[in-house]
Amino acid sequence: MTGLVADIGGTNTRVALAEGPRVAADSMMRFHNADHDGPSDILAAYLARHGAPRITQACVALAGPVRDGSGRLTNRGWIINEQGIAKVTGATQVKLLNDLQAQGHALDHLARAGLIEVLDGPELPRATRLVIGLGTGVNTSVVHRHGRGLLVTAAEAGHASLPASDEDDLSLARFAAGADGFASIEDLLSGRGIEKIHAWVTGRAGMPRQMTAGDILAAGNDDADDPAVTETLRIYTRLLGRIAGDLALHHLPFGGIFLVGGVARAMTPHLARLGLAAHFRAKGRFSPLMREFAIRTVVDDYAALSGCAGYLARPA
Amino acid sequence: MTGLVADIGGTNTRVALAEGPRVAADSMMRFHNADHDGPSDILAAYLARHGAPRITQACVALAGPVRDGSGRLTNRGWIINEQGIAKVTGATQVKLLNDLQAQGHALDHLARAGLIEVLDGPELPRATRLVIGLGTGVNTSVVHRHGRGLLVTAAEAGHASLPASDEDDLSLARFAAGADGFASIEDLLSGRGIEKIHAWVTGRAGMPRQMTAGDILAAGNDDADDPAVTETLRIYTRLLGRIAGDLALHHLPFGGIFLVGGVARAMTPHLARLGLAAHFRAKGRFSPLMREFAIRTVVDDYAALSGCAGYLARPA
Repeated sequence: MTGLVADIGGTNTRVALAEGPRVAADSMMRFHNADHDGPSDILAAYLARHGAPRITQACVALAGPVRDGSGRLTNRGWIINEQGIAKVTGATQVKLLNDLQAQGHALDHLARAGLIEVLDGPELPRATRLVIGLGTGVNTSVVHRHGRGLLVTAAEAGHASLPASDEDDLSLARFAAGADGFASIEDLLSGRGIEKIHAWVTGRAGMPRQMTAGDILAAGNDDADDPAVTETLRIYTRLLGRIAGDLALHHLPFGGIFLVGGVARAMTPHLARLGLAAHFRAKGRFSPLMREFAIRTVVDDYAALSGCAGYLARPA
Repeated sequence: MTGLVADIGGTNTRVALAEGPRVAADSMMRFHNADHDGPSDILAAYLARHGAPRITQACVALAGPVRDGSGRLTNRGWIINEQGIAKVTGATQVKLLNDLQAQGHALDHLARAGLIEVLDGPELPRATRLVIGLGTGVNTSVVHRHGRGLLVTAAEAGHASLPASDEDDLSLARFAAGADGFASIEDLLSGRGIEKIHAWVTGRAGMPRQMTAGDILAAGNDDADDPAVTETLRIYTRLLGRIAGDLALHHLPFGGIFLVGGVARAMTPHLARLGLAAHFRAKGRFSPLMREFAIRTVVDDYAALSGCAGYLARPA
């Protein structure tokens, strides 16, 4: 039984073969979406380069909403459905997951070394876990255990309202909002959000400057202190703390919170010194409860593929 | 097999007997918490008045966080645990649920006539459902189907941050916040929240007035228009629309959203004319998705008891 697993992100698509719950070593390939007409084209190209192996099962993770086996890649408009995946791969068992759901299915298959501790906490082994994705987009998934299996939820959490708490937040939300005036969580916590925070910080100081999220995050690691970059990362940490705390109250993840995605990995070295714990726990009389939630960052950039493999090998 | 079911709220405790998945007719009694020392005292009083029936199973719903079979009544500080319930009832199977989880377990047992339509939508029969409780407290529960059973989640959603979106919201949040400056969703969407909104509206107009939530909601039904009351209900509707919309994006309840609790029932006649739909759906480029979520209000004030009975009779 050979499985095909794929992770269709906003910029790249990764494809690999799965053997049981593991991604087969050296089978992973990365494709730039901009070079291809759509997901079927990418899957066909992958299979052709691997000598057209016989595929019995396929699981694809998509950075966009999935319903009834069909989904749409949010940042590119590609449409994909399970029938289409079955047709191009020849698989008889096919599953399309939201990419954060795939990250949820990966949690049981992560090496301990692939996790960085952000906030210490109890992490009860059978309790609910929360995945927060911070990258090109922002989203969540909740992982519940039931019996021998998992129930992994889908969400569009990044499109919920940004919870402003003071005049600075309001000014920032207005700066980041779209033409309709609506500012979402994703508008500030995505990679694009870091760029907007930085543009707002430098604009407010009378020295407007444009930098990419990659350059801002790289400058944050520099020994030479750039005050606008530090202030950008400080505001990001404050917003992330408040929003992650709200998400913890919505989902009660006593099994832990797991940050995934490129922005999460890049921000992780800064979160402690910029005061994440205090912002996460500032919930009035419910602040003591917030100490029950551990936060870790998932280092493995290919976890969504592992999650797809884990999904295909799940208990019946 | 006779089951005991109870719903321990902030003000009252209701107790009844269950026969299979139904609450036994005429078995329900209501107790004022203020007249009793604690939940064991109430359960003992109920059983004594019913001739000490032999109880095999008991399920108790509590308005407060429950972990590992133990919970604390948020607004009164009472501690209750499953061992204590077993001791006073003699039941060998005992379950303590959060009250919103009990409401979630009730959904499959509600008569269609016990629901009022607030916002029309598809309501897919096997999809996720979201319960939003609006009363003395504010909280949520999410109901997932898996196989023949249900997975019903617990939350402390009312204690998440109030998502302010303009200067009026900030002013209101500061007015409603506790001494620590933190304003939660519950601070404005509970019965106490309606009182705070009304005090803020009348104070801002230079005519500060104190009214109870019951009086404000009753005045809202009056033909004689009271502008401060109408403005209070309008602000409540706007905040509820935004927050319920955010919750829909966190949980994707394609099976419907169900409002429960005394404030939900009292607000229901006002929600359409005060523009709930527009506030619920104002989510930028995700606004079209919001049309997929139906909202209904649960009329049955005893639904939590039905949920406890449903829990005891659930498939193995």
